[in-house]
Amino acid sequence: MDEKVLIELVSELFDKKEYAELRKILIGIEPHDLAKLAERFDKKELPIIFRLLPKELAAEVFVEMEPDMQEDLISSFSDKELEAMLEELYIDDAVDIIEEMPANVVKRILSSTDSETRGFINEILKYPKDSAGSIMTVEYIRLDKAMTVADAFKRIRRVGVDKETIYTCYVTEPDKTLTGLVTVKHLLLADEDSIIDDIMQKNIIYVNTTDDKEHVAREMSKYDFLAIPVVDGENRLVGIVTVDDAIDVLQEESTEDIQKMAALTPTDKPYLRTSVFEIWFKRIPWLMMLMISATFTGTIISSFEDALSKMVILAVFIPMLMDTGGNSGGQAAATIIIGLSLGEISMSNILKVIWKEIRVALLCGITLAAVGFGKAIFIDKADVLTALVVCSTLIVTVVSAKLLGCTLPILAKRIGFDPAVMSSPIITTVVDVLSLLFYFGIATAILPQLQ
Amino acid sequence: MDEKVLIELVSELFDKKEYAELRKILIGIEPHDLAKLAERFDKKELPIIFRLLPKELAAEVFVEMEPDMQEDLISSFSDKELEAMLEELYIDDAVDIIEEMPANVVKRILSSTDSETRGFINEILKYPKDSAGSIMTVEYIRLDKAMTVADAFKRIRRVGVDKETIYTCYVTEPDKTLTGLVTVKHLLLADEDSIIDDIMQKNIIYVNTTDDKEHVAREMSKYDFLAIPVVDGENRLVGIVTVDDAIDVLQEESTEDIQKMAALTPTDKPYLRTSVFEIWFKRIPWLMMLMISATFTGTIISSFEDALSKMVILAVFIPMLMDTGGNSGGQAAATIIIGLSLGEISMSNILKVIWKEIRVALLCGITLAAVGFGKAIFIDKADVLTALVVCSTLIVTVVSAKLLGCTLPILAKRIGFDPAVMSSPIITTVVDVLSLLFYFGIATAILPQLQ
Repeated sequence: MDEKVLIELVSELFDKKEYAELRKILIGIEPHDLAKLAERFDKKELPIIFRLLPKELAAEVFVEMEPDMQEDLISSFSDKELEAMLEELYIDDAVDIIEEMPANVVKRILSSTDSETRGFINEILKYPKDSAGSIMTVEYIRLDKAMTVADAFKRIRRVGVDKETIYTCYVTEPDKTLTGLVTVKHLLLADEDSIIDDIMQKNIIYVNTTDDKEHVAREMSKYDFLAIPVVDGENRLVGIVTVDDAIDVLQEESTEDIQKMAALTPTDKPYLRTSVFEIWFKRIPWLMMLMISATFTGTIISSFEDALSKMVILAVFIPMLMDTGGNSGGQAAATIIIGLSLGEISMSNILKVIWKEIRVALLCGITLAAVGFGKAIFIDKADVLTALVVCSTLIVTVVSAKLLGCTLPILAKRIGFDPAVMSSPIITTVVDVLSLLFYFGIATAILPQLQ
Repeated sequence: MDEKVLIELVSELFDKKEYAELRKILIGIEPHDLAKLAERFDKKELPIIFRLLPKELAAEVFVEMEPDMQEDLISSFSDKELEAMLEELYIDDAVDIIEEMPANVVKRILSSTDSETRGFINEILKYPKDSAGSIMTVEYIRLDKAMTVADAFKRIRRVGVDKETIYTCYVTEPDKTLTGLVTVKHLLLADEDSIIDDIMQKNIIYVNTTDDKEHVAREMSKYDFLAIPVVDGENRLVGIVTVDDAIDVLQEESTEDIQKMAALTPTDKPYLRTSVFEIWFKRIPWLMMLMISATFTGTIISSFEDALSKMVILAVFIPMLMDTGGNSGGQAAATIIIGLSLGEISMSNILKVIWKEIRVALLCGITLAAVGFGKAIFIDKADVLTALVVCSTLIVTVVSAKLLGCTLPILAKRIGFDPAVMSSPIITTVVDVLSLLFYFGIATAILPQLQ
């Protein structure tokens, strides 16, 4: 059904209070779409709609909502309703929600869960932000290696309904050490009497609770896993991360990279729901810092005022030199940031990278200089010496820009920063200073007018 | 085992020709890691290693290799070996490989497959690049709605081994129209005698063969699907896309966005395996275009040579104005590009976006101008009027940069371009021109020295 038609139909049924009919329509819609639809209703209407949904679907829709709507809904719930809904939530989803709520709501949520769930939630909340532990779920299927395939299916049927995935099952020793895994595909294709120990996979790729969540997501994408086990320092299985959460991590990460590369403080709040003041607050620190740094460039110009007033034509080439330097550096930085994030480049490759970038930079610099020389002579009517100054500055600038662009992200990563911060805006600012120093340095050395 | 230790051990066993021992170690390694390991061996050694692997694993490793290694291997294969390996490949993987091979290799591959597979491969090759059809696989499990759950399991056990996923099964009418789906989780939790028609999900989210592959990946990530059905114009099921391929599409897309935003021609070839000349070729067109555009900025400066020679201090503020304009525009562009790519912003929001950006730009502009004014007076020792010229230019520049930054990506998308192209480098170049025009315009209007 078309989205607009659906919204009209739902609103109409709601206004006429034809709730039975409305319910029938709502239960056919995917949770994500229901959450979007719910945004059309106001604070008072929302709980009515919500109560029409079957418990399980209601919980799935709740998970897909924006934090402010979740908060409104929770405050409209009776204690009993809240309890019922929390029971339906997967623990990792409950943790995600708790992390977005104000303290009083968190308190109410925690006091509405049973003590076992509360224990799990607190356990996960303890892991550092961005760690594997913080995004894992404890709801997975555990098998014993002495079980037969038939036993395994019995257990899956018994406990599977509450598990986030049943398709990969994990085999542990009594002390919870991870020793094997078996997929439902293997179970289905195996003989009913086979022993798990004989059919399970024993070389297991796993992650540690303290590993970075991006590392977890990359491992899963590399090996095409639907889930990956998370173990603690003693190799005991404590949880799993499922592929849907890995996708979210990868998407968040690339969004953050783009934001950092454009001198923005990262946020995952949708643009249209972010206030003007919040947007200003995310943008102004970087703009201010870069503006103040850019005034150094101005200082260089002012220290060469004499040269400039003797030969105003020199000023004509300043924007071109600065922009080309910034773009060259930005290209190298973006290439290296991508390589680092895909794991293709690391600190150990830095010399190879530098050598490659020097050659690329020389090729680029010479090509640009050749075209720039022609343009300076024929279009800007500069004399040959001035054109030579511009072109040699261009080559030196491009080479140093590419060198900075390729080394700064690697060094940033080496000392524990996100390489994406060392991208175009910062490199541009540094290269601006360099290019002007080269420019006026070469000019005063070569041009007779400036002697 | 540590990677270095593993490589040494494998090399040692290989050199000593202890192939039985070597094989035991190799079969315990994940295909992706084996493909990386294989890069350590040369053209002659590789086929020997490869022949040690069991057929199925060999095929999985082959899929993970870089195209040039695949080509080397294929040329070392006998026709029989090639045939055996192609039989093990999933059809979508075979298509991916074929797309990277030169014509003579493609011919050899196609003549080594049986006619049914060749038919499927040709079918998929016909779909436009970047369409859902081009990334789908035809190896899925189809059920009839009259089947019982027990029948369904029988079919899964019989045909499942060759299917890319067995966890989502699709129900079609005899004319292949898609009518339902059922997951293995539902099958396992249902009664053995239940009829598929009664337990299957009938509201199905699907994509069309001609839909863009990014749309497919976003739908799957939105709804947390492990697979999504692909139908043709008559609603007949022709294939499925699995979540591992969706992740690849999302990653490729964000890499491409970052590349375009840094004025690079997109490529998915690993940096260290790309030749200097190829890298140059990906970078020089944009650098050249932007350098030539930047000379317009120079032309503006030269047309105000008079003003500049009267008041050289004006040149001091040029880099700061240009950089701040570029950064402000780049921030807005990146924000909007992310919003467009996540589907949060569309053409219909353009007025809302513009109104929001105007307010943010005014806030940013005024904050920057206040700091800039203080700095111009106290540090650069400019007079009050000059400082006022700089600050008002700053505000006008930031506002126009943010306006361009938010509208250009939306307009680019509207006319069918990738919005990521309209990012920092291009916006910087346009804003440079604008900021200088504003600057000299305001200066000549206000400053008595220039009258």
